[in-house]
Amino acid sequence: MKNIIVQKFGGTSVGSTERIAHVAKIIEAATKNSKVIVVVSAMSGETDRLIELSKSFSSTPNKREFDALISTGEKVSASLLAMALESEGISAKSYSASQVSLRTTSQFSKAKILDIDKQRMQKILEEDNVPIITGFQGITEGGDVTTLGRGGSDTTAVAIAAAVDAKRCDIYTDVDGIYTTDPNVVPSAKKLEQISMEGMLELSGQGAKVIQIRAVEFANKYRVPVRVLSSFSEGTGTMINLDDNNMEDAEISGIAFQKNQTKVTFTAVEDTPGIASKILGPLSDADIQVDVIVQNVGIEGKTDFTFTIDSDEKFLLDRVVPIIQESINYKDILIDNKIAKVSIVGVGIRSHAGVASKAFRALAEHNINIGMISTSEIKMTIVIAKNDLEKAVRVLHDEFELEK
Amino acid sequence: MKNIIVQKFGGTSVGSTERIAHVAKIIEAATKNSKVIVVVSAMSGETDRLIELSKSFSSTPNKREFDALISTGEKVSASLLAMALESEGISAKSYSASQVSLRTTSQFSKAKILDIDKQRMQKILEEDNVPIITGFQGITEGGDVTTLGRGGSDTTAVAIAAAVDAKRCDIYTDVDGIYTTDPNVVPSAKKLEQISMEGMLELSGQGAKVIQIRAVEFANKYRVPVRVLSSFSEGTGTMINLDDNNMEDAEISGIAFQKNQTKVTFTAVEDTPGIASKILGPLSDADIQVDVIVQNVGIEGKTDFTFTIDSDEKFLLDRVVPIIQESINYKDILIDNKIAKVSIVGVGIRSHAGVASKAFRALAEHNINIGMISTSEIKMTIVIAKNDLEKAVRVLHDEFELEK
Repeated sequence: MKNIIVQKFGGTSVGSTERIAHVAKIIEAATKNSKVIVVVSAMSGETDRLIELSKSFSSTPNKREFDALISTGEKVSASLLAMALESEGISAKSYSASQVSLRTTSQFSKAKILDIDKQRMQKILEEDNVPIITGFQGITEGGDVTTLGRGGSDTTAVAIAAAVDAKRCDIYTDVDGIYTTDPNVVPSAKKLEQISMEGMLELSGQGAKVIQIRAVEFANKYRVPVRVLSSFSEGTGTMINLDDNNMEDAEISGIAFQKNQTKVTFTAVEDTPGIASKILGPLSDADIQVDVIVQNVGIEGKTDFTFTIDSDEKFLLDRVVPIIQESINYKDILIDNKIAKVSIVGVGIRSHAGVASKAFRALAEHNINIGMISTSEIKMTIVIAKNDLEKAVRVLHDEFELEK
Repeated sequence: MKNIIVQKFGGTSVGSTERIAHVAKIIEAATKNSKVIVVVSAMSGETDRLIELSKSFSSTPNKREFDALISTGEKVSASLLAMALESEGISAKSYSASQVSLRTTSQFSKAKILDIDKQRMQKILEEDNVPIITGFQGITEGGDVTTLGRGGSDTTAVAIAAAVDAKRCDIYTDVDGIYTTDPNVVPSAKKLEQISMEGMLELSGQGAKVIQIRAVEFANKYRVPVRVLSSFSEGTGTMINLDDNNMEDAEISGIAFQKNQTKVTFTAVEDTPGIASKILGPLSDADIQVDVIVQNVGIEGKTDFTFTIDSDEKFLLDRVVPIIQESINYKDILIDNKIAKVSIVGVGIRSHAGVASKAFRALAEHNINIGMISTSEIKMTIVIAKNDLEKAVRVLHDEFELEK
């Protein structure tokens, strides 16, 4: 069975029974040419409703129970979608993570997929119906229900596509593809017909909210071609290409950004080897994602150590700082949550040193102050004040003529 | 571990987060003296909300998916209750039917419990927390989710009590015990301190809506003492006694009734052995519960065969009648859905032949016409017109002086 397509539908795509009926028609069309496996998110609003309920008893509800609770959202939409297909004459069957043995680590709310029972998937594929699998969740070795964190349904879809050696994984959402930047910020932003996996990885990591970063990593690792498209309108979306060699990636493919960032600085720490791991180790143990990291040149054996995190995870610092305090000396902790990140993404970065100076000059001309800079092979991230973000995105989009 | 109590909380008892917080306090108090296992229903209204969603695509949704859908309701309340207990400092853990391996038959929406993994239950009991198990549902051998039908959470609770050899199963609901009849119909109805298992079985079967009949059958079969009480008010409820010998059952313990009944008559069927099974067999296969059955004396080798069913199941007849038609000859099918049943329950029935004549005379004095009569050891059921039902209940309650 070679011609398998995985279709994933996000929360807005299954946001009402009318939308679910529409999705059933999209699936029906796809079944004419391929064997289809479907992965669904919870109906939009449902996860938030459940989270709200969980806060009735404590602001930090028990994590195991929290995951068991919110994982019911996808079970509801999977069953409803199966019913919708049945009513169109297409036989369908919903499966929970436990029913397909989708195993994860036991970090509740941030679980990572370990493996999917391939034999079980094979059996499911042999049945004459469309399997509809709950996204966003898994089970531990001990049978506890876990969730993968927001957006985790994308990862579920790609992982399943990898497990069944699918031809393609289609991620249906409420936008019609990947744009050079957010069209809400820059109206002339252009939809990309295709993008390299590498470029996507950088765009996604910097907050192009269309597809979850872990899903792209998975797709990259297991060589699953992914397409992003809309369930609300016709169109071919954006293909995320596997083969870098055949790629006609633009020099600069897009501008990505993340609004709510927090900058943390430990001042006057000892400038000795191992200091970075003493700070970053406990952060990683607490599962806080650290992004831009800057360590200044040491003066008199002391240095300042700065990194950024997502502001949503700031509350986790309270647990981690006491652990860091035990292993290093420092003068102060400075926390600034009024920052944002903007990134220039594209293969042009590695070939043209001019990109950086072009970007810095354009920002300076518009009085945008640059905080920190971090560069990778195909991405340059600039930390700026939150207030400057939208202006910076527009300036850079113009500067690199991405509307063309 | 001998001192185990199973507490079951119905939909109104967990109908809001405030009610759930209150239930947590009831459980907390019980944990002081016993090891407690909790079984929960869905929050009241939730199952109806899910049923409503399922009707968006078809009036007869796929049964497997229907069960998968509505079983999410108990998962939500189980997790919320665990969170509520945790916030009171009581460690708790929710379990789905699949997590406790509660196996059922594969009749969706009407599944019957086959067994509970006792080893698994033992392990769960050894953990230092309150297990909270989803009522109303199970899984098939193949891992599909099933539901037990409305009220099935009572059966789950009693089955779990039987599996762990519990001292008692407390069914918490929104009424404070079993009454001699419905207090809404007869305001002077009296709460019973205790009732025999046998008496309860008859009362329950006839629609005393406090506890599900299958739960009482289970309790009877596995010798589990059951208590019915309110989560809304203090009180000791009604104890359903195991030991018939120690029982001080009243001569007549109560008046039960069921409003929405349908009478089905096959006229002029052949009066030969096996005719009953040819009619009742297909009904049983379709899982239609047949109650009062009357076969008139045959005249010229022909007889009329009449039975009553719950009006809610009338739609199922359409499937069954063609099957019956293939195996028997008859003249007509008469269907009357304007009937109701009223039952006099108590050990007095078997000892005093006078009960029947007393009842018939009282009904006649109030111009209530009697349709069919069926008697068991401790119950006499009378089929009457639906319009006469409330009057009949009041007349019989008065006649047997049950308010005393």
